[in-house]
Amino acid sequence: MSERPITVRPPYVAVIGDGEPSGPDAHLILEWAEEIGLELARGGATVITGGLGGVMRAASRGARGAGGLTIGILPGADASEANEFVSLPIATGLGVMRNLVVVTAADAVIAVGGRHGTLSEIGLALRMGRHVVALSSWRVESEHRLGGPRVHRARDPREAVALGLRLAAEGPFEPS
Amino acid sequence: MSERPITVRPPYVAVIGDGEPSGPDAHLILEWAEEIGLELARGGATVITGGLGGVMRAASRGARGAGGLTIGILPGADASEANEFVSLPIATGLGVMRNLVVVTAADAVIAVGGRHGTLSEIGLALRMGRHVVALSSWRVESEHRLGGPRVHRARDPREAVALGLRLAAEGPFEPS
Amino acid sequence: MSERPITVRPPYVAVIGDGEPSGPDAHLILEWAEEIGLELARGGATVITGGLGGVMRAASRGARGAGGLTIGILPGADASEANEFVSLPIATGLGVMRNLVVVTAADAVIAVGGRHGTLSEIGLALRMGRHVVALSSWRVESEHRLGGPRVHRARDPREAVALGLRLAAEGPFEPS
Amino acid sequence: MSERPITVRPPYVAVIGDGEPSGPDAHLILEWAEEIGLELARGGATVITGGLGGVMRAASRGARGAGGLTIGILPGADASEANEFVSLPIATGLGVMRNLVVVTAADAVIAVGGRHGTLSEIGLALRMGRHVVALSSWRVESEHRLGGPRVHRARDPREAVALGLRLAAEGPFEPS
Repeated sequence: MSERPITVRPPYVAVIGDGEPSGPDAHLILEWAEEIGLELARGGATVITGGLGGVMRAASRGARGAGGLTIGILPGADASEANEFVSLPIATGLGVMRNLVVVTAADAVIAVGGRHGTLSEIGLALRMGRHVVALSSWRVESEHRLGGPRVHRARDPREAVALGLRLAAEGPFEPS
Repeated sequence: MSERPITVRPPYVAVIGDGEPSGPDAHLILEWAEEIGLELARGGATVITGGLGGVMRAASRGARGAGGLTIGILPGADASEANEFVSLPIATGLGVMRNLVVVTAADAVIAVGGRHGTLSEIGLALRMGRHVVALSSWRVESEHRLGGPRVHRARDPREAVALGLRLAAEGPFEPS
Repeated sequence: MSERPITVRPPYVAVIGDGEPSGPDAHLILEWAEEIGLELARGGATVITGGLGGVMRAASRGARGAGGLTIGILPGADASEANEFVSLPIATGLGVMRNLVVVTAADAVIAVGGRHGTLSEIGLALRMGRHVVALSSWRVESEHRLGGPRVHRARDPREAVALGLRLAAEGPFEPS
Repeated sequence: MSERPITVRPPYVAVIGDGEPSGPDAHLILEWAEEIGLELARGGATVITGGLGGVMRAASRGARGAGGLTIGILPGADASEANEFVSLPIATGLGVMRNLVVVTAADAVIAVGGRHGTLSEIGLALRMGRHVVALSSWRVESEHRLGGPRVHRARDPREAVALGLRLAAEGPFEPS
């Protein structure tokens, strides 16, 4: 944890994704996550992640590189499980349900890649009224003609951050 | 709660969906949910729902009509909030997080319509390795070339139940 | 799981305690838990436990011996982790937090022995307005002159069950 | 939320207690909580609370008065529900179970007064291996000759803080 003075301020933006990306895109996903963290910190946001590896570590690393504050909401009870780029680890003991806290603590959520855990976070974010931006992540569509906010798709990290910061400034929507 | 003798046995199949369906399809969604409950009970399954209204009540009503056992996993602390077709209410006090229990307690999950709460349950079900069948519900697809189980789409209640019973018999898959 | 017809009915009484009792009293604690389960079932109650070993297994065994229904609220995601005397396993995936469900699902709670996990369940039960009966378990007292319900101490299993059934019939109190 | 630079560093000490103290001691309890927050911040600790009123607000106010960082783990989904002395609100959406996060995120816990919610936090803290210091709070004792850590009683705020800081430096114990 940092001993440097750090400014705590909104907005909070969560970056979610795979803890161990694999496959041909793994390297790209991690690069994107780091760039997203960097741009969020440059844009003045505090970055929230699940505090572990993969996308969580890459986004935290990017944010710290720009002097940002990074919060890691850990599933376990041991704060030392946080990656080295987390300024402020929150050990929850919640297991899977720490996913609810990651997204609820945020003003908006950016998903980069991700497997089923990320899909559950996207669903919980929308359930809690948090806007979600997706970059090469999950496409979710209601077949039942549902109105209301959907997942916003971005084409690259900069667009994801621009959208994320705009939606975070708007704040939560009314959950349906 | 019933005083009649009831057979408790697997499989457990969760039926998830909107607690207050609205719009032009609302009536159809409720009819489908009731038929799904009925067919699940005829097929020997125990039906799990979130215990409240709308799709949860319709599925429980269908199952009870065929002599089935219905379990209602309630968000609040008061078992009397369960709808009248729940044989066995479980008051959890968990709020939103009761969604995790609804799907984890099940061997497979059938979604009928639904809004963001249902999407969060679909995501959590896949995260926990439960197969999901969707009838006019959410379409979720990984843009990131994810392998592994996806949501199975059904065209009508009978197909949803046939798929649901088959997948419940297979049991959970290994979460990725 | 049983294929026999089972009557589902209130009251629900939770029996909580150590999953692996040790020390000189271990045998006695398990005997008491089994007797409590037996007497609860004879008294018409459905028995809720955490579904695992030790006191949970002993209480379930006692209840099943008297033809009672036993519900096991498991911390993990695998229903097969339930002990063999659980009629109806509910896999929650909640980890530690399943303790909240065990007590909230009940109309009253009986604690037999127990370590810190049991203490957390006693605290959560009171927080949720559930009366608690303790047999050789935790003594908790407010130094701050708190009014309102406290833990009821019983001297033997029969007294614990008599108190538990009476308090379950009264139902929850208003949490302070 | 503060725009001032803030140092984020361990130890984290949670201060728990009544959100709306009443009775003849209410004023004293709030004074104590504020002094505890102040002394913790002077001692270099980050103060964690449940983020709402009463003891949570008083402890945060004390800590901020000494330039400390205060984290508020809120039960609801709206960060603006945090009291004005919380530097860093974490909205969880967890309801009652945010109590688990308050104590698990901490290296040690100080309880000041409190009702059943505080008792549940004490139980959860011990369950998670966090040492607990109590000042005019709950006395909990195992009747079952349990070994292992118990609640440490303090006579005044300074002793509570001295004990709390020492136990936080020791870190968690192995949960039994």
